[in-house]
Amino acid sequence: MIWRLRSGHPASYTSDMILKKPDSVENKPVAMAGAQNVCMQLLCGPDDGCPNFAMRKFTVAPGGCTPRHQHDYEHEVYILAGEGVVFGNGKEQRIKAGDSMYVPANEVHQFRNDAAAGAGSLEFLCLVPALVHKPGAPQPIMVDCAVEAVPAR
Amino acid sequence: MIWRLRSGHPASYTSDMILKKPDSVENKPVAMAGAQNVCMQLLCGPDDGCPNFAMRKFTVAPGGCTPRHQHDYEHEVYILAGEGVVFGNGKEQRIKAGDSMYVPANEVHQFRNDAAAGAGSLEFLCLVPALVHKPGAPQPIMVDCAVEAVPAR
Repeated sequence: MIWRLRSGHPASYTSDMILKKPDSVENKPVAMAGAQNVCMQLLCGPDDGCPNFAMRKFTVAPGGCTPRHQHDYEHEVYILAGEGVVFGNGKEQRIKAGDSMYVPANEVHQFRNDAAAGAGSLEFLCLVPALVHKPGAPQPIMVDCAVEAVPAR
Repeated sequence: MIWRLRSGHPASYTSDMILKKPDSVENKPVAMAGAQNVCMQLLCGPDDGCPNFAMRKFTVAPGGCTPRHQHDYEHEVYILAGEGVVFGNGKEQRIKAGDSMYVPANEVHQFRNDAAAGAGSLEFLCLVPALVHKPGAPQPIMVDCAVEAVPAR
């Protein structure tokens, strides 16, 4: 994190606004066990100076999914494009562009693109506390994707 | 904020996942001085149990703008639809769907939809620390929209 005072500006200015174009951010395959055909762009994170929360964009190809997992921090999610399924509260629900979700800490959750091959990707923003993207952050607890972790209500 | 233990689930479950459809969230005109033709939906906030940050969706009609203002907390912004102009770092830059921004604390900033009447709205997510949406939060410092607050670099 670099704090840069800008000459001639009020002392309250401590860093610059950052504007990123979509193609300027590396889109990395998610290597976490259980992730299938998922890529992530870290749009705002600690390296940008973000003190409190981090914004990531996920792209899930048809047939792909995020791991069914849980962790002790929350997600705030906004579906940008496509449709699919979210697992949470012990069941699956359909989601599509424009939907938003709050996934509280310790909730077992998963996002799946159940579209046929060749259909569109499921794209969503998923925000987390900035600490998650700092070195040494604790790893999420993984839950077997083949098993319903929590009985449906 | 309501924490609800769910019978039959592990004790680590402290609240439910919340899934909101776009039309289920009230879209309120922004009443802040200097805001013109802007509406806001609070998608995730303290009332949902969000502990750290809040997700809002803004819609700026053609010719509209957010106030040119500053405050002691940051924004993380993602442009969902349309195009327009962001003021930050003392200058205006064009923005469009897919762009993302980190607006650090104390940065004078503004979003404008400079499209002609009848064109599409500028829509974006703007996230802030959750405290901002708790009662009694401090109000932003307003900057005269007609004046360049910070000299262009």
